[in-house]
Amino acid sequence: MELPITRLVVSCHDQPGIVSAVSGFLHAHGANIIDSSQHSSDPSGGEFYLRMELAATPEATAAIEERFGPEVGEPFGMTWRMWPDARPKRLAILASKVDHCLLDLLWRARRGDLGAEVVLVASNHEVLRPAVEPFGVPFLHVPVATGGKEAAEEALLAHLVDACDVVVLARYMQILSGGFLERVGVPVINVHHSLLPAFVGADPYRQARERGVKLIGATAHYVTAELDAGPIIEQDVTRVSHRDDVAALRRAGADIERIVLSRAVAWHCADRVIRTGPATVVF
Amino acid sequence: MELPITRLVVSCHDQPGIVSAVSGFLHAHGANIIDSSQHSSDPSGGEFYLRMELAATPEATAAIEERFGPEVGEPFGMTWRMWPDARPKRLAILASKVDHCLLDLLWRARRGDLGAEVVLVASNHEVLRPAVEPFGVPFLHVPVATGGKEAAEEALLAHLVDACDVVVLARYMQILSGGFLERVGVPVINVHHSLLPAFVGADPYRQARERGVKLIGATAHYVTAELDAGPIIEQDVTRVSHRDDVAALRRAGADIERIVLSRAVAWHCADRVIRTGPATVVF
Amino acid sequence: MELPITRLVVSCHDQPGIVSAVSGFLHAHGANIIDSSQHSSDPSGGEFYLRMELAATPEATAAIEERFGPEVGEPFGMTWRMWPDARPKRLAILASKVDHCLLDLLWRARRGDLGAEVVLVASNHEVLRPAVEPFGVPFLHVPVATGGKEAAEEALLAHLVDACDVVVLARYMQILSGGFLERVGVPVINVHHSLLPAFVGADPYRQARERGVKLIGATAHYVTAELDAGPIIEQDVTRVSHRDDVAALRRAGADIERIVLSRAVAWHCADRVIRTGPATVVF
Amino acid sequence: MELPITRLVVSCHDQPGIVSAVSGFLHAHGANIIDSSQHSSDPSGGEFYLRMELAATPEATAAIEERFGPEVGEPFGMTWRMWPDARPKRLAILASKVDHCLLDLLWRARRGDLGAEVVLVASNHEVLRPAVEPFGVPFLHVPVATGGKEAAEEALLAHLVDACDVVVLARYMQILSGGFLERVGVPVINVHHSLLPAFVGADPYRQARERGVKLIGATAHYVTAELDAGPIIEQDVTRVSHRDDVAALRRAGADIERIVLSRAVAWHCADRVIRTGPATVVF
Repeated sequence: MELPITRLVVSCHDQPGIVSAVSGFLHAHGANIIDSSQHSSDPSGGEFYLRMELAATPEATAAIEERFGPEVGEPFGMTWRMWPDARPKRLAILASKVDHCLLDLLWRARRGDLGAEVVLVASNHEVLRPAVEPFGVPFLHVPVATGGKEAAEEALLAHLVDACDVVVLARYMQILSGGFLERVGVPVINVHHSLLPAFVGADPYRQARERGVKLIGATAHYVTAELDAGPIIEQDVTRVSHRDDVAALRRAGADIERIVLSRAVAWHCADRVIRTGPATVVF
Repeated sequence: MELPITRLVVSCHDQPGIVSAVSGFLHAHGANIIDSSQHSSDPSGGEFYLRMELAATPEATAAIEERFGPEVGEPFGMTWRMWPDARPKRLAILASKVDHCLLDLLWRARRGDLGAEVVLVASNHEVLRPAVEPFGVPFLHVPVATGGKEAAEEALLAHLVDACDVVVLARYMQILSGGFLERVGVPVINVHHSLLPAFVGADPYRQARERGVKLIGATAHYVTAELDAGPIIEQDVTRVSHRDDVAALRRAGADIERIVLSRAVAWHCADRVIRTGPATVVF
Repeated sequence: MELPITRLVVSCHDQPGIVSAVSGFLHAHGANIIDSSQHSSDPSGGEFYLRMELAATPEATAAIEERFGPEVGEPFGMTWRMWPDARPKRLAILASKVDHCLLDLLWRARRGDLGAEVVLVASNHEVLRPAVEPFGVPFLHVPVATGGKEAAEEALLAHLVDACDVVVLARYMQILSGGFLERVGVPVINVHHSLLPAFVGADPYRQARERGVKLIGATAHYVTAELDAGPIIEQDVTRVSHRDDVAALRRAGADIERIVLSRAVAWHCADRVIRTGPATVVF
Repeated sequence: MELPITRLVVSCHDQPGIVSAVSGFLHAHGANIIDSSQHSSDPSGGEFYLRMELAATPEATAAIEERFGPEVGEPFGMTWRMWPDARPKRLAILASKVDHCLLDLLWRARRGDLGAEVVLVASNHEVLRPAVEPFGVPFLHVPVATGGKEAAEEALLAHLVDACDVVVLARYMQILSGGFLERVGVPVINVHHSLLPAFVGADPYRQARERGVKLIGATAHYVTAELDAGPIIEQDVTRVSHRDDVAALRRAGADIERIVLSRAVAWHCADRVIRTGPATVVF
């Protein structure tokens, strides 16, 4: 019988003995470490980040969950979380009118490649409903009237709070308020259609065309109150040339956007991403 | 016997009949078009760019050089230039203390891969002299004393004007004045160690580290009076991660810098780059 | 009013005066050349390839189509074809059980990014029917019984001949006979899940894992009677590591396969690909 | 004061308790684990690979080196090695006539980017002597007369055995015998100018041109008795097109070759590469 696998993610101030303490504790509880990654921002006085995959019986896993805090986590001043490898993250997707990022996520979730189940797609437009419904996922239309942003955010929060583990903005063309981000209570991942920090803000492909760049890119990042400034999870680029007008840049960029966003979501759902203040560790 | 090859580069307002006029003229003079690239920024009322390689006898080539202007160039309001494929461009390189871009250019020139001969390396420091001299290239030390930028530029101009066809800044850590750019009279190519327009100015790898980017890049561009804002010739990136501190980013970036700069110089020397105002066409 | 655009694709033995003759003919008929690419395999005695986009009135276009052969094509011994830019190619897709390449083509066709309309999806299995039908595209189930390959090919031919301009094998796991390829009368494009010529034949990801490669790739090519040996249209790779088992290679490879196949189909549908015997020119 | 750093590389059959035993042992000896990577080929019954960087006083390091075997290595049936981070690997380079890979290694070693000092360059030709001598590295000419391969290998072995920690073939155009590989007693790294397993053997760029591939690559691998079949360390590619003749492929390939080989050598010298039978783990 295959033993259930649990992911353990730890961060704390770096100090001697962490790996020994964690691995000793796990070994004592009969867990086998089948994968492990660690990073120290600075061996003397920096931050320490650790991700492990443990195989253990359900009883041992329960004991580990109960005892890890008092025996290891608290003595070392750790922040930690555990997540069963077999449990998909509940994913809510916000979109507007373009479908490429949304469809890529729905399709990967259906294939089982994302480590997530999509529990809701919400949009400020109706146009994507027919693309979503064949996937058997609820589609919620939450229009944003002029001056009605607050009401729209309330409507979204009513469906999102406690109902999802992560929110993904799949080219959602609305800026979410700081209050929304606080109240939604789960990480929010966005894709920006440029290689940040280049071309912050509106219409980056037009900016890219005007600047005459030879590469365009996309960036997936956690959303924070400051626009396009949250911790970067993943970026990629594609080559363009003088032959590509703004429409061609948009088409080429769409392929990069969906790949970058899908990678970021998959890594997040596999608990491979740890926020380190303004940046991320991706194991 | 192989016929000598000449490169013809043309730009003008787009209008019907350009290709027909150029190719008809060349055919009438016995030249064979062995390679041709063209681009229109906008078929109705944009700019037209053309690069051709012609094979013709020396007599036919001389006649083409004499007659192209009055018969084709002037009637269409063209800007044009011709360059014999066999004649290397005379390259002057300015450097400071780091050697990676400089050595890459010297190696490639020695191998005959650059379409250029290096006629001079000038530096504001002595440290690169031993790296340069084994190549048999003159090394000129032009120190820049505090407040002595003007004098240093005069000294450089005395060696550069009429002595080179292009100046390359191989990580030259001085900002050249608008007056210098004007008086030097040839294109100046720089490499900036970021994927412009991200991280303009000083220490881009530190900026990149602080922003937590997942790709770093380099940009080769023509130098204009505005810092790091000239027309981009080439860009490329390499993947980095949380494991890379600023020193590691610098090492990884050095490889991208030298590849990007060498490509840009080779393309320039092959007359494959045409400036289009703020950007470039690269054929 | 925007003039209709026509694509002209030419190949012939290289000889002086081709560009002059073609562009002179087009100019005389009032057509404006808005894009042009050419290639000579060898300036002395090789093959010449040309692709142009012409803007001309419908009347001028009709005259060009009628007169190009006798006035230019035949005197130069050309092979040529013309295609209206506005007319989508009719695309028939053959698939088996995996959906990633198929869905990518259906999405792109629906977005209008492919220059094609999908007229038929045929499969030797029923499993992809629910994925296809939301797109409003006919789904044809053509099972291949043991020993029944000939009958299956007949059934396919009955639906394909004269009904499509190109056939795409979107991970169709059947080898088509030379007779089929001949009778279907249109180009057939396949995607092979390796960077050909590495890993010809079955289960290339298992072969790649066993060889310990650090990059895996995919190849889109025209199908010929010899397995996986037809002219390559496009290839790309993605980085893998010792962490990736065969299933992970398959997942990573699926992304490359669909991108490579979609690019190849889009380029083919834009008449940007010319076969040159065992290889291709892609303009 | 910064503590000296030691690299520990371990492989053994996977079994519970390895990480706990290693990290407990190290913690008990006062060593701090500042970096750690591990991989299991298969959690149930596969192979386990581990690389750690330890910071410890010289006394503690000596004790670890003495006690690791009896206390941890032998009980778990491990293969292990330790290497001081500060000690460069002694590198011997064999080359023939082309200089790009050789120069790249010499230059990186001089910059201190390679974790190696070059103790010898040997070549079967004299032509590279002037390129090597400015680096202050001994150049040894070992001609290979017809029928004189055995004598040449003896001459090389006389200079290599016990004098270097790794041998690098920087486009050395001679096939080394199995006997040589055995007697030299250190790993031998080669770069092959194709993306293996495509285009094994002679003149891969000509093979690539004939096959019409759209990407060319290079492969760095450990040399084994079977030609071009040893464990792959690193691979990379670059895009090519129908415009590139064999000479252009060679030029483009040279850039990939030197980057791939330099990466492989740097990783090897940092003890980041572990052979796993036919393949490698690269941490």
